[in-house]
Amino acid sequence: MLAYSRVAIIGMGLIGSSLARAIRARLPTVRLTVSDASPEVRARVAALDLADDVADGAGAAVIDAELVILAVPVGAMAAVARDIAADLAPGAVVSDVGSVKARVLADLTDALPGVIVIPAHPVAGTEKSGPDAGFASLFADRWCILTPPPQVDAWQVTRLGDFWTAVGARVEVMDAHHHDRVLAVTSHLPHLIAYSIVGTASDLEAVTQSEVIKYSAGGFRDFTRIAASDPVMWRDVFLANREAVLELLGRFTEDLVALQRAIRWSDGETLEALFTRTRAIRRSIIDQGQDTEEPDFGRKH
Amino acid sequence: MLAYSRVAIIGMGLIGSSLARAIRARLPTVRLTVSDASPEVRARVAALDLADDVADGAGAAVIDAELVILAVPVGAMAAVARDIAADLAPGAVVSDVGSVKARVLADLTDALPGVIVIPAHPVAGTEKSGPDAGFASLFADRWCILTPPPQVDAWQVTRLGDFWTAVGARVEVMDAHHHDRVLAVTSHLPHLIAYSIVGTASDLEAVTQSEVIKYSAGGFRDFTRIAASDPVMWRDVFLANREAVLELLGRFTEDLVALQRAIRWSDGETLEALFTRTRAIRRSIIDQGQDTEEPDFGRKH
Repeated sequence: MLAYSRVAIIGMGLIGSSLARAIRARLPTVRLTVSDASPEVRARVAALDLADDVADGAGAAVIDAELVILAVPVGAMAAVARDIAADLAPGAVVSDVGSVKARVLADLTDALPGVIVIPAHPVAGTEKSGPDAGFASLFADRWCILTPPPQVDAWQVTRLGDFWTAVGARVEVMDAHHHDRVLAVTSHLPHLIAYSIVGTASDLEAVTQSEVIKYSAGGFRDFTRIAASDPVMWRDVFLANREAVLELLGRFTEDLVALQRAIRWSDGETLEALFTRTRAIRRSIIDQGQDTEEPDFGRKH
Repeated sequence: MLAYSRVAIIGMGLIGSSLARAIRARLPTVRLTVSDASPEVRARVAALDLADDVADGAGAAVIDAELVILAVPVGAMAAVARDIAADLAPGAVVSDVGSVKARVLADLTDALPGVIVIPAHPVAGTEKSGPDAGFASLFADRWCILTPPPQVDAWQVTRLGDFWTAVGARVEVMDAHHHDRVLAVTSHLPHLIAYSIVGTASDLEAVTQSEVIKYSAGGFRDFTRIAASDPVMWRDVFLANREAVLELLGRFTEDLVALQRAIRWSDGETLEALFTRTRAIRRSIIDQGQDTEEPDFGRKH
């Protein structure tokens, strides 16, 4: 019997509560125990009936779980792992959902000697936070990347992959460091840029903040969605994936300076060539089912 | 009788064709004549029945129009204006829909001496182009900014404002140079950054383009929508609003470097403070009806 019958989730924010809902919807025989550091969140999760049990502490939640998933900010992983270490059942698999994998793998391995650790990252989310923001279909057709260390048995990786497939995701296996370089491009840099441009726009002298808000439909409003993402989660991502983010930021800045020079020199050809190339990337993303074809993301007009 | 009874639109892309549809839907008594430089577009507009007449040339389209709206890329305004100059009816108002206003005001004034010129900018759009991409409700609850020169009679400004109100927009009047600084923030810089980051991401060594596409749901895909906007239109915007864009780009780069340093020094407090502040801006944009409250822009999951 490969499938997990007892699962624990620690942390019931957007991702943890979405996973709980997906388990309820698609794996109804799984016995699900959850916990969260916040008493308010625990009470809300109980009221929403998202799990079979809502434990007061992380340790109590994991006691007989075959799979434990840590859905807390990346910077909190080590502490939570230490907190549950003594309560884990023999043979339990510990995984997570964090956006950075090399650091999490190191932190969990250090805190949980002898435990099977398989980090995971479902590449999915919205700008909302908390247990009310979750929904069961969040992972449908999104990729979940597993980054097992070499010593983990292949069947354990397959087993965890099957679990994510069962809740709707597509599964890929990757080296943790490569994951961190890929996600620096497809997620971390976009968030950093969005936070930065929204910060810049709200702090100018010549243009007031109320003008920025009023005329945001010109493109700016798109950036504010990403820049409304959870502040603590994202603080931890940048601190934990520092090297890859800084390296990529250097590359981005180079490219931006080249574009700046094209504008200064009125080099329309360079601009048009880039703007034509980028259009094709959008097409590929839509063709591969990673975004909607509807204009303006299907926003209502 | 203040309202225009005969309107001409030159250029039937996303904006021109949306305006034609909005006029048809909301101002059915207006006699609408349109044209476009492309024979294919003219044929498509005729097949879609978007206007009373589809003229072969811009001059023929404007002959008896009381209001002429140029919906062409900003860099093409001067040539189109020269093209229609001899055919304009006495008292005709010439306006436009371009994203840059000081340059357009200067170009139209130079090309059309003695003509009433009132530049306008409906702050609305999608990433799609062409006559099939337009829709009648594009301007609903979006702002349309008029930038009349001081010598234009106030009643003419009101008359044009009433026209835009009738097709669903909210109207604001502003100095052309101030418009260009405001839109540099809310539209031009966001587009430039989006084009730049998509260009960077598609041209790396450590991460393949197929990985970028596959894992784009981490945030990157949002930028690809804006970076799929019309290449010629946007080339012209950056060339025509060079000073304001370069000044703002300098400011953005400063802020980004500060953020880069915060990451390098593991200064989590600075990161979290910014990420918390930007979340509030999103809230204001939603409260003012300039974006949807639905998570992830209401994308289907």
